[in-house]
Amino acid sequence: MDLDDMFNPESVAVIGASNMEGKVGNAIMKSMKRRYIGKVYPVNIKEEKILGIKAHASVLDIDAKIDLAVIAVPAKIVPKVVDECGRAGVKNVIVVSAGFSEAGREDLELKIKDIADEYDMDLIGPNCLGIYNPAIELDTIFNPPERQDRPEAGSIAFLSQSGAFGAATLDWFSEADIGLSKFISYGNRVDVDEADLVDYFSGDKDTDLIIFYIEGVKDGRKFYEATKRCGKPIMAVKSGRTEAGSSAATSHTASLAGRDKVYDGAFKQSNVIRAHDFREMFNITKAFSFQPLPKGDNIAIVTNGGGAGVMATDELVERDMDLASFSKETKERFKKAIEDEVIPEHATLDNPVDIIGDATSKRYGKAIDIVLKDENVDAVIVVLLFQSPAIEEDIVDRLDSLQGKKPLIAVAPGGRYTHRLTAKIEKRGIPVYQTPGEGVQALWGLCRCCPERRNDNKEVCEG
Amino acid sequence: MDLDDMFNPESVAVIGASNMEGKVGNAIMKSMKRRYIGKVYPVNIKEEKILGIKAHASVLDIDAKIDLAVIAVPAKIVPKVVDECGRAGVKNVIVVSAGFSEAGREDLELKIKDIADEYDMDLIGPNCLGIYNPAIELDTIFNPPERQDRPEAGSIAFLSQSGAFGAATLDWFSEADIGLSKFISYGNRVDVDEADLVDYFSGDKDTDLIIFYIEGVKDGRKFYEATKRCGKPIMAVKSGRTEAGSSAATSHTASLAGRDKVYDGAFKQSNVIRAHDFREMFNITKAFSFQPLPKGDNIAIVTNGGGAGVMATDELVERDMDLASFSKETKERFKKAIEDEVIPEHATLDNPVDIIGDATSKRYGKAIDIVLKDENVDAVIVVLLFQSPAIEEDIVDRLDSLQGKKPLIAVAPGGRYTHRLTAKIEKRGIPVYQTPGEGVQALWGLCRCCPERRNDNKEVCEG
Repeated sequence: MDLDDMFNPESVAVIGASNMEGKVGNAIMKSMKRRYIGKVYPVNIKEEKILGIKAHASVLDIDAKIDLAVIAVPAKIVPKVVDECGRAGVKNVIVVSAGFSEAGREDLELKIKDIADEYDMDLIGPNCLGIYNPAIELDTIFNPPERQDRPEAGSIAFLSQSGAFGAATLDWFSEADIGLSKFISYGNRVDVDEADLVDYFSGDKDTDLIIFYIEGVKDGRKFYEATKRCGKPIMAVKSGRTEAGSSAATSHTASLAGRDKVYDGAFKQSNVIRAHDFREMFNITKAFSFQPLPKGDNIAIVTNGGGAGVMATDELVERDMDLASFSKETKERFKKAIEDEVIPEHATLDNPVDIIGDATSKRYGKAIDIVLKDENVDAVIVVLLFQSPAIEEDIVDRLDSLQGKKPLIAVAPGGRYTHRLTAKIEKRGIPVYQTPGEGVQALWGLCRCCPERRNDNKEVCEG
Repeated sequence: MDLDDMFNPESVAVIGASNMEGKVGNAIMKSMKRRYIGKVYPVNIKEEKILGIKAHASVLDIDAKIDLAVIAVPAKIVPKVVDECGRAGVKNVIVVSAGFSEAGREDLELKIKDIADEYDMDLIGPNCLGIYNPAIELDTIFNPPERQDRPEAGSIAFLSQSGAFGAATLDWFSEADIGLSKFISYGNRVDVDEADLVDYFSGDKDTDLIIFYIEGVKDGRKFYEATKRCGKPIMAVKSGRTEAGSSAATSHTASLAGRDKVYDGAFKQSNVIRAHDFREMFNITKAFSFQPLPKGDNIAIVTNGGGAGVMATDELVERDMDLASFSKETKERFKKAIEDEVIPEHATLDNPVDIIGDATSKRYGKAIDIVLKDENVDAVIVVLLFQSPAIEEDIVDRLDSLQGKKPLIAVAPGGRYTHRLTAKIEKRGIPVYQTPGEGVQALWGLCRCCPERRNDNKEVCEG
C-alpha cells in the first residue's frame, strides 16, 4: 500500500462540494480552497460553480488526473460515488460521510470496501475528518478555522480514530506551537487501517513521532507487527479501558474495543508508549517537540519552593524514574557557589535542589548550570514559583542560554504574571507545565521515546 | 484556642517593617497598607516612618491594643521580639521569618514556642506567608499583587504548609473566580497546628470547605480527632507519598512526613477527601464553588463526540462511580424528541448520550433537559467540542437556564475559540474542564463532599 499520493496529492476532487453554508461539502471546499497548493475540482450534480470554481456533475466528467477524491455525500450514495472514482482512475479516496457501521449500516461500509478493492483504490474512512498536511496545506477538515486552529508544519504525525477529539488536539497543538507532519482522522477505517498508517509513517521522512488516539484497532495482529518493525517512537492514547467505556466505543466508531489488558500487553511488547489521557499525551508531545531526548531517567530538580520539590519527587518515584545522585564534582561546585555567595548556605543542595524562596535568576542560573554539568544527570526540571518577587525577568534569557544536549523543562503554576513569563520561556523552546506531576509526565514520556529505552527504564540509552 | 482575633484583628503591628524595596518587611507593609480595613502599626528600630506611617522602635512603644503582630525580622532576633509581644499583651503572632527547624535551628523554634506558651499567645509559623482574609482585606503575604493575585471573598478555607505552593494556588483560585474565606500559610507550625485550624474552621460560618496542603501533620492523633469531629468536608493534598518525597519534605518544612499509608488510612476513616495533586484539588474546588452537591454518583454524559464519551466513561468507572441507567420516562422523552426531529435518529441515546457531531445548541438543550429530569441521574457532564461549526453561541444561555438542583459541569478541550466560549460559560457558574478525566475528577470530589457520602460511594446522600 503506497499512501504517498493520498497524503501528497497534486489534485483533489471534492465530491458533494456545495455553496450552501452549513453543509459539510461547503466547509470542506472552503478548507481546500484556503491555502492548498494543488488543484481543487468541486463535484456537484446541480451547480455550475462552487465558491467560484467550475464544478463538474461527476468525477467522471473531470478532464484531468485526480490524485485524491474527498467524498461528502449522504451515506447511501457513497457506494455509487466510490464506484465512479474507480472508473475515473482515482486511486485514493477519503469518505468523510457518516452513517455507516457506527449507525448500524455495516452493509454499506462493506460495499464501499469491496468497490475500493475492485479498483485497487486506497480508502480512508468512512465517518472521519480526513487529512491535514501542512507542508502542502492539504486540508479536508470541515471545522472552520475560526473555531479550530491548524498547527504549523513539524515532526509529529497525529492519527485519530475520533474526529472530534482529533480536532480538539489540533487546537491544543496550535496553541502550544507543536508542529505537525500530518493529521489523519481515519474513523471507521474500513480499508486503510492503523497498521497501514504505522507502515507509512515509519518511512515518512517528515515524521519523528507517531501518535494514535484509538478505541480499538481493526486488526490487532497486523497492528502489533507494524509497531514491532517501526523504528520510530509511537505513542497511543487508548480509551475503552473499562468494560463500560469499551461498550460506549462500540456505538461510536463501531469498533470492538477488545480487552484492554491485551492492548496493554501488546503495547508494552512492541514499544508503544501508552499515555493515560489527552493531557498526558499533550504534555509528552510538547517536550518531544522542543527538547532533545535524554540518555536516561536520572532527573535533577531545581526549585524555589520546597513543596514543589517534594511533589516532583513523589511523581518521579511513582513512575519508576530516579532522582539523580550528584557527583563529588557537583557537590564541590555547590560549595564554591556558597563561598561565592551566589547560593545561600541554608539552601538544600541535595536533589531536589531547593534554592529557597528568595532565589534570584542568577541563583537559578548557577544551580541549573551545576546540575546540568553532572554526568549523573540526564534531564532537569526547573520549578519557578513566579509569585516570589525575587526572580528577575532575565530568567528567560538565562534558561535559554542553558539549553543544550540535555532536556530542560520548567514547571510554573500560577496566574496572570506566571502566564506572561511562561509564554516568554516557551517561545525559547523550553516547555513549561502547570504542575510538578505534569512536568514529570513529560520527562517520563521523553525517556520512553528514546529508542533503547522505550520500555525499560533501567537501561541506559545511547540515543 | 480561640483564633478569632488572629484571623479578624482590628489592629496589626508589622515588626520588621521596612522602607527598603526588596525586603520582606517592606513587601508585607505594602500588602497590609493596600486595603486592610483595620489599623496598621509598623515597627522599625531606626526609621521614623514606614511608607508614610509613623513607626515605633518596639511593639512595647505602641500606645494601643494590638490584636496581631506579624514578625519579619532575622530568625535570631525573633525570640526577643516574640517576648516583647508577650510583654506588650499581644495575644496573636505570626512569624513569617525563615531560618528555624527547616534550616537546622530547631532550638530557636522551640524557644519561640516556649515564649508563646509563657504569655499564652497563639503563634502561626515560623517560615510562612501568614494570613489572607478577604473579608477584612487582612493580607500579610509578601508576594506583590502584580506577581500573585488575591481571590475575592468566598467559602473556601485554604491552609498550606508550603507558602510557595499556597501562593500559586491563590493565583489559580483568582483566575477561576473561586472565593476564599481565609488563606493560612502556617509553615513549621510550632504552635498553632493543623488540628487547631480544623477546629477553628469547623466553627467558622464563612467556610464551607476546608482544604489542606500538607507534607506531614504535627500531631497525627490530634489531627485525626479534629477531622473526625468536623462537620464540614475537608480535602487534603498530601505530598511526600514516597520515601524519597518524604525525605525531601523533611528538609523543607522540617516535618517528618511519616508513612503515607498511615495518612491514607486516617484520611479514609475521618472522611478527609484525598486529592492526588494540585490540579485535582483545583478541579474539585471549582465544582464545589459553583455547583450544588449531588445526591449520589450516578452520572449522565451528553456529548457531540463519541470518543469523549468513551473517555469520560472510563474515568467514571475507574473511580468507582456509575453511569446512570435511564428510566423508562427518559427513553420515552428521547423517542418523542426524535419524532419532533430535535434529536436525529442515529444519535446514541444510551448513557453516554452521543448527540453526534452536528449537534446544535437546541439539540444539546433538549438532551440535557431530558437527562436532568431523570430521577436516576444525580449529575450531568456535558462535553462540548466547539470545533464543530454546528453549536451556536446561545449554548451559553441554554446551559445557564438548565442549572438547578443537580450539578452540571462541562468539558471543552480546545484552543482560542473554545477558551472564549469557556469563559462565557464559567461566568454563568458552570465550571468547564479541558479533558473528560478532569471533569470526572471534579464530580468525584463533589460526591465525596456530600456529608453522607464522603467515603462510601454506594450510599445515597440526602445532603
